[in-house]
Amino acid sequence: MQALPDGVIYPADTRQVSAVLKVLHEYRIPLVTRGSGTNLCGGTIPVQGGVVMVMHRMNRLLELDLENLTATVQPGMITADFAAEVEKAGLFYPPDPGSMKISTIGGNIAECSGGLRGLKYGTTKDYVLGLEAVLANGDVIRTGGKLVKDVAGYDLTKLLVGSEGTLAVITEATLKLIPPPKSKKTMLASYADLYGAARTVSSIIAAQIIPATLEIMDNATIRVVEDFARLGLPVDAAAVLIIEQDGEPETVERDMARIRDICLREKAAIEVASTAEEADKLLAARRTALTALSRLRPTTILEDATVPRSKIADMLLAINRIADKYGIQIATFGHAGDGNLHPTAMTDARNEDELHRVEEAFAEIFAAAIELGGTITGEHGVGVVKAPYLEWKAGPAGVELMKRIKQAFDPHGLLNPGKMFAAPARKRVVIDRA
Amino acid sequence: MQALPDGVIYPADTRQVSAVLKVLHEYRIPLVTRGSGTNLCGGTIPVQGGVVMVMHRMNRLLELDLENLTATVQPGMITADFAAEVEKAGLFYPPDPGSMKISTIGGNIAECSGGLRGLKYGTTKDYVLGLEAVLANGDVIRTGGKLVKDVAGYDLTKLLVGSEGTLAVITEATLKLIPPPKSKKTMLASYADLYGAARTVSSIIAAQIIPATLEIMDNATIRVVEDFARLGLPVDAAAVLIIEQDGEPETVERDMARIRDICLREKAAIEVASTAEEADKLLAARRTALTALSRLRPTTILEDATVPRSKIADMLLAINRIADKYGIQIATFGHAGDGNLHPTAMTDARNEDELHRVEEAFAEIFAAAIELGGTITGEHGVGVVKAPYLEWKAGPAGVELMKRIKQAFDPHGLLNPGKMFAAPARKRVVIDRA
Repeated sequence: MQALPDGVIYPADTRQVSAVLKVLHEYRIPLVTRGSGTNLCGGTIPVQGGVVMVMHRMNRLLELDLENLTATVQPGMITADFAAEVEKAGLFYPPDPGSMKISTIGGNIAECSGGLRGLKYGTTKDYVLGLEAVLANGDVIRTGGKLVKDVAGYDLTKLLVGSEGTLAVITEATLKLIPPPKSKKTMLASYADLYGAARTVSSIIAAQIIPATLEIMDNATIRVVEDFARLGLPVDAAAVLIIEQDGEPETVERDMARIRDICLREKAAIEVASTAEEADKLLAARRTALTALSRLRPTTILEDATVPRSKIADMLLAINRIADKYGIQIATFGHAGDGNLHPTAMTDARNEDELHRVEEAFAEIFAAAIELGGTITGEHGVGVVKAPYLEWKAGPAGVELMKRIKQAFDPHGLLNPGKMFAAPARKRVVIDRA
Repeated sequence: MQALPDGVIYPADTRQVSAVLKVLHEYRIPLVTRGSGTNLCGGTIPVQGGVVMVMHRMNRLLELDLENLTATVQPGMITADFAAEVEKAGLFYPPDPGSMKISTIGGNIAECSGGLRGLKYGTTKDYVLGLEAVLANGDVIRTGGKLVKDVAGYDLTKLLVGSEGTLAVITEATLKLIPPPKSKKTMLASYADLYGAARTVSSIIAAQIIPATLEIMDNATIRVVEDFARLGLPVDAAAVLIIEQDGEPETVERDMARIRDICLREKAAIEVASTAEEADKLLAARRTALTALSRLRPTTILEDATVPRSKIADMLLAINRIADKYGIQIATFGHAGDGNLHPTAMTDARNEDELHRVEEAFAEIFAAAIELGGTITGEHGVGVVKAPYLEWKAGPAGVELMKRIKQAFDPHGLLNPGKMFAAPARKRVVIDRA
């Protein structure tokens, strides 16, 4: 999908954002707020025209507060730059979406970005303590603050996180920082049997070990990554897990020894990184998955169906069954530890018949995720892509409520219109929510 | 404030809750949902009459999921019973409000209860993954699930947490559990100088140590607790800190050694608990503070003004200055680590003049908290008590937005009416929010 705005604005400060919104509000002109546009749900496409407001000029780190362990930052700051500044001050900002070298903090907040560390450290939502935001009518609000505890009224902070630019324009954020882990250790476990890998994930959590990273790649992904990056991956494995633990040195050693035992019990072949370079190589395998897959065919569609972590084996099998049924190519990798899988279709958008089959297959994948107690999107957002499926997860009464919240914030529907809400897709599969 | 309902209902299941709400909705009868009514903000007083719905019969633990580390529970279950069941299964539910032996999980969710472990472990909000709730019209919605990552639409889960029964009736909750800490260690540090205690708090956090508990009691509290409980507390100290760290044994040892050094640098006298009994005794000192204080005078008013943790010394001094100004008795204790202080007035509600001075003093204390970047309530909620002050924290545009959210959920204003919103109190102090 492509669409052009009627105009583009690069505001320099909150005052300008407010002034712009007052004018747009008066003339009922739509506004799409945009960071770097890296979202994977069509979230920043100006489908109804209007003005696109690009936040890149508002990119300053306003404060690092070492006594309260918070940072206050403008929305246009690049996430990786922010993380690097925080690191220089001896602190740690865990959310690490795959796009972090390009994406902005404001975009991360609007989409509630996840990443590889979600299982242990949570997602963007867990690090936003306070916001400054401009409402559709130009009013400026401040929510939260440098406070762990604040129950003064409804939690507008968490409501704005993940609201995809449909409720307000975020102009400043106060983020929680944490002490960095003192050491880390990384291992690769290869499995002949997909269920062995999935059982390992369940067993690690059931043993009350929460690893910093617990990623999975299926055989199709392993082959493509190996072909692309030549990292020495086991191309015949049904799946590999990439496991990293961080923390105090003794804890890391103890946890990794126990994880190793669990992997061996599931007949995995194990490779433990002995140097930082080896560890980086293992993580690089996972991080290049999308790039590698996208070389195969002209169009790559990356999804993020998410299930309770105990259901990832069922979900992986469902994905493969559905791909076969529709005769399409899907490789799956993702964050096994938090159940957030990325089934990725390699296709060609010019082939209408194939693209249609891909769409049908993904609809069935979303339905399968929901049947397993999961959701249609774990970290990519709804945007235009998932809008037809929102009702499958939230139910008709839930969607109706969300529309009324949207109305409460933006009565004239000017902020990122055409996103999140759409006519629901027909149900392909009977979903039992009982 | 006292008020009687027109009727009381004890529902047995979600179906009954929905049926009741449909009838109340049809006849426009107000509903106040109630757990054990332990809240400290008048949150469950039926100020407009109507029906009080007591959730105590819906008190079952529906599921402990050891693979996903979640519990699914009905709202009427007593928090301490729930925590005990979780512990039996070898897991840990951290939120520990002072009322937990009486209060319910549903009440904790409605008020977003905190407790002594907020600094390290967060509050109730951080443990609610999904909810079932009944809307004002009787519709049942389900939000979230056993999912770390879920961005399908607005985060209704976090919006309902802390909404004080004004948006929906919570009928089921899926809560996150974590592995329990393997060991813990407790110490008491006594200070001749209040600022020494406050600087210790800042220095501990700035040294990147996040203790499990970091409590403060001022001299007035120490004296009263000692008089009540005879624990051997230093009655001449300006303040004491009660500090607990938990986790892996090596980490606990290392952190406590570093904390000890910081305390000594601030000229504290230190007592480290060498047995579990001694540790319990130190924590008991803090836990009995309210009981001890409430023996002194007929009426005890416990508040929860909260500031960024770097500002607790300023806040403590402001509280003492304001108490002197109005000639009233205030003792302060609380969660220093997360800036959540409990200034507690000992007064007599029959003495109208004194009660008036107490109210004026607390208004000034809330204003001081906001001036220091804090909030009017850290963990007790708004209810009727704080409603006049909500605008001081959220601003007029913020309160207006909250009212429209309330309207979106409950267009006829039937759910817990008269709470959270009220005519704003006049500002006693110029508040600079720039």
